[in-house]
Amino acid sequence: MTAALEALKSKMAVISGLRYAGALMGWDQETYMPEGSTAGRARAMSTISRLAHEHATSPEYGRLLEDASHEVADMPPDSDESRLIWQARREYDRAIKLPSDLVAEMREAEVTATQVWQACRPENDWQRFTPYLERILEQQRKMADLLGWEEHPYDALLDIYEPEMRTSEVRRVFNDLRERTAPLVSAIADRADEVDDSFLHQHYDEDAQWALSLDLMERFGYDYTRGRMDRSAHPFTTTFAQDDVRVTTRVDPEFFNTCFFAAAHECGHALYNQGLPERFANTPLQGGASSGMHESQSRLWENVVGRSLPFLSAYYPRIQEAFPDQLGGVDLEQFYRAVNRSAPSLIRVEADEVTYNLHIMLRFDLEVAMFEGELGVEQLPARWNEKMEQYLGVTPDTDADGVMQDIHWPSGLYGYFPTYTLGNVISLQLYEAALRNLSDLQKQLENGNTAPLLGWMREHVHAYGRKFPPQDLLERTTGQRLSAEPYLNYLNTKFGAIYSL
Amino acid sequence: MTAALEALKSKMAVISGLRYAGALMGWDQETYMPEGSTAGRARAMSTISRLAHEHATSPEYGRLLEDASHEVADMPPDSDESRLIWQARREYDRAIKLPSDLVAEMREAEVTATQVWQACRPENDWQRFTPYLERILEQQRKMADLLGWEEHPYDALLDIYEPEMRTSEVRRVFNDLRERTAPLVSAIADRADEVDDSFLHQHYDEDAQWALSLDLMERFGYDYTRGRMDRSAHPFTTTFAQDDVRVTTRVDPEFFNTCFFAAAHECGHALYNQGLPERFANTPLQGGASSGMHESQSRLWENVVGRSLPFLSAYYPRIQEAFPDQLGGVDLEQFYRAVNRSAPSLIRVEADEVTYNLHIMLRFDLEVAMFEGELGVEQLPARWNEKMEQYLGVTPDTDADGVMQDIHWPSGLYGYFPTYTLGNVISLQLYEAALRNLSDLQKQLENGNTAPLLGWMREHVHAYGRKFPPQDLLERTTGQRLSAEPYLNYLNTKFGAIYSL
Repeated sequence: MTAALEALKSKMAVISGLRYAGALMGWDQETYMPEGSTAGRARAMSTISRLAHEHATSPEYGRLLEDASHEVADMPPDSDESRLIWQARREYDRAIKLPSDLVAEMREAEVTATQVWQACRPENDWQRFTPYLERILEQQRKMADLLGWEEHPYDALLDIYEPEMRTSEVRRVFNDLRERTAPLVSAIADRADEVDDSFLHQHYDEDAQWALSLDLMERFGYDYTRGRMDRSAHPFTTTFAQDDVRVTTRVDPEFFNTCFFAAAHECGHALYNQGLPERFANTPLQGGASSGMHESQSRLWENVVGRSLPFLSAYYPRIQEAFPDQLGGVDLEQFYRAVNRSAPSLIRVEADEVTYNLHIMLRFDLEVAMFEGELGVEQLPARWNEKMEQYLGVTPDTDADGVMQDIHWPSGLYGYFPTYTLGNVISLQLYEAALRNLSDLQKQLENGNTAPLLGWMREHVHAYGRKFPPQDLLERTTGQRLSAEPYLNYLNTKFGAIYSL
Repeated sequence: MTAALEALKSKMAVISGLRYAGALMGWDQETYMPEGSTAGRARAMSTISRLAHEHATSPEYGRLLEDASHEVADMPPDSDESRLIWQARREYDRAIKLPSDLVAEMREAEVTATQVWQACRPENDWQRFTPYLERILEQQRKMADLLGWEEHPYDALLDIYEPEMRTSEVRRVFNDLRERTAPLVSAIADRADEVDDSFLHQHYDEDAQWALSLDLMERFGYDYTRGRMDRSAHPFTTTFAQDDVRVTTRVDPEFFNTCFFAAAHECGHALYNQGLPERFANTPLQGGASSGMHESQSRLWENVVGRSLPFLSAYYPRIQEAFPDQLGGVDLEQFYRAVNRSAPSLIRVEADEVTYNLHIMLRFDLEVAMFEGELGVEQLPARWNEKMEQYLGVTPDTDADGVMQDIHWPSGLYGYFPTYTLGNVISLQLYEAALRNLSDLQKQLENGNTAPLLGWMREHVHAYGRKFPPQDLLERTTGQRLSAEPYLNYLNTKFGAIYSL
């Protein structure tokens, strides 16, 4: 008998319906919502998210969860039922630790801080922004304590995005990565003139860019009957349900990479969610295993495939066909080198594969230092610039291009940044495992056939949804836990060749 | 002290947030939703509407309503507070009379019947459709009995869309209208060749049609910062909140009227909702007084203004400018007569102002006959064709162009059709009152200035939201209750001139 489990699932479906509505409101806000509709939207979104929180923390939900966990106690520990209870309990235990008032206060503070950040950033007005950021940090510290931690308060935040990840583990992997990336970064710096990407910076018709990105996503296996692509200021992927996974991107008419690689990136996220098993629908098992695991998929399709010589050797003719005037005289080799040009830069979202992680490590270091109380908000800009010089050898002229460039801090997303680099690292662990399993993968990519790679990810990653903690899933799939080794090899091989090192 | 009222209002805001989400899901479904996303969408929409129903019928809501009605007992009967309680009680009393199971069964039967209707209509397969329609009718009869009625069971349904309207009253007005329209219809039929509209049926560029419709709506006073226009198979207006009122339309590249007048029509609905007072937001007073009152606004802008000589004399140059090849050689008089061409036809949504109401009366007669048990579903097609011959002098060749043309019956919208004609009738009562109040209104329209008319509607109609039953509002605004007189005068004058009668 699984009466309690069935009753629990119907409660989960209600929460899932509310989250569906909330996600649609969020998508509409970034794509089609009229500019004067923010007040009504904010009110409705807050109503919906409050209802979802109430349903997810109701005493009845808690009772059903308790009863259902007894029902499944004798089932195999790896069964869907056992794992569903594990994941549901994870979420429930976290949700009930946070009082509704604090949740509401945090949302309010984040909305306000984000608005202030948007106003202060173009003005380089760090001073005005400081008290808002301090309030967010205070709340995050409080939340960490309420959620609980063993080794480090920052662990509590990490765990939200990367279940069971520890600060010490991130530090270990990041240090390894930083030390062993440094020689590559400086070797590339010595040969900066090797790669010319000036032809990527010219006029590219917006409609043609759009059509090409739609085509690329179709090539990667994105299912347009269960999704769509729209424009927004910042590219994102959103999932209402199994059968409606949407992406957005933006177009820069003067730069090729913006739309094309953002579409490839978001497509990677979307392929993951479109590939989740139908039987997990409307339960806490629906979704990616973690933010890092999700990012592994986006970075896989953006970089490991999209910026690879094998895939481009098949797909570049299509790109040339879309832009004969701009790229007719540019050969594959030139194009491949250009889209992989590496150089230290100020802005994270524009960074190449080699230097990107240094931007993340800097943020991780600063977040941890703030959580340890070692670094105050008022010292943040100075420390930022110091670290930029140390890690990347560049210093921003303004805070807008420095400490104020990301929306994450005013939005209360502490503990999130590390998952970007974890995603890079995991993407190569998965790709290497796929290469071991699929002997002709490289050749298939050279033929423009990405289906075997997607099939492998579907079978070994997507099929599990949120059934296992990301590290366990990684171990099941690749035989190893988190390791920077494959990613370092990949960087050294790829960029060694490009820069003739 | 109005503690209970305040608590009640915060409950109302929750219901309003859920309805916001439901409306957005409905809009997205008709505009941007991918084709393969219906299952997930249906599930989420049903969750949201069930939650809204649960909140609107909860014992706590009922208690607060009871307590709040004591709090406002001594307030003036026309105060916002007293009227809010009146409207809230109306909705609550109706909602609790319908068991959740019946509501769910009805939704399910309607979704199924609509799907079957969509499949059967192109096949003219009335036989297969019959049992589904019978089930809907059975449920509607049951609902009418549960809701309660005094004179006629159909009154219970009418009251949903047109508060306090009675079948006997509709019959009186409709008979009056039919008898006194008949001579006009046959006089026009004798002079059918008077008006040539062939130039409206040629190629009109879709983008240019779209741009023109956007311009027209702006001219009418539609606020694009709090709304937008998108494409859908069937034009509609939807309101998420005061600050987000959206319209849709469709474009026929071979016919001018489709997009232009649908946009004018939907704009009328949208102007009403954009003009509701902010203080009614998130309460049952937010919205139009009735479906008929709402339709009065859409028909006002579509026909009384949009198809009028004064307004077109100002706006036609803009239309010609958009379509110089098609309309460069067509003068204002020709254009005005063409867009007002009248002729008996089979399809309601394509009917002109003179014959439109006959389509509605036919449906009203049939619905009432079915509710009286005098007419069975199996006899419906024969009776339809008979009535078409009697009212309009035409008989459809197929059921697709006859009894199966509208989505209303499979959707469970019984009692709704009459509000279309009530809207026509009311539109002229309001317009005549505005003419009495604004001595230079005609002249303003000739100058293309529609702002005074909108201002008058804002002040005398929109400002009241759902504070009063529609007939009371009409009496306050025009000094008279429902009367076909102004509409008949309008038709006789306008079409008498066009057809030189």
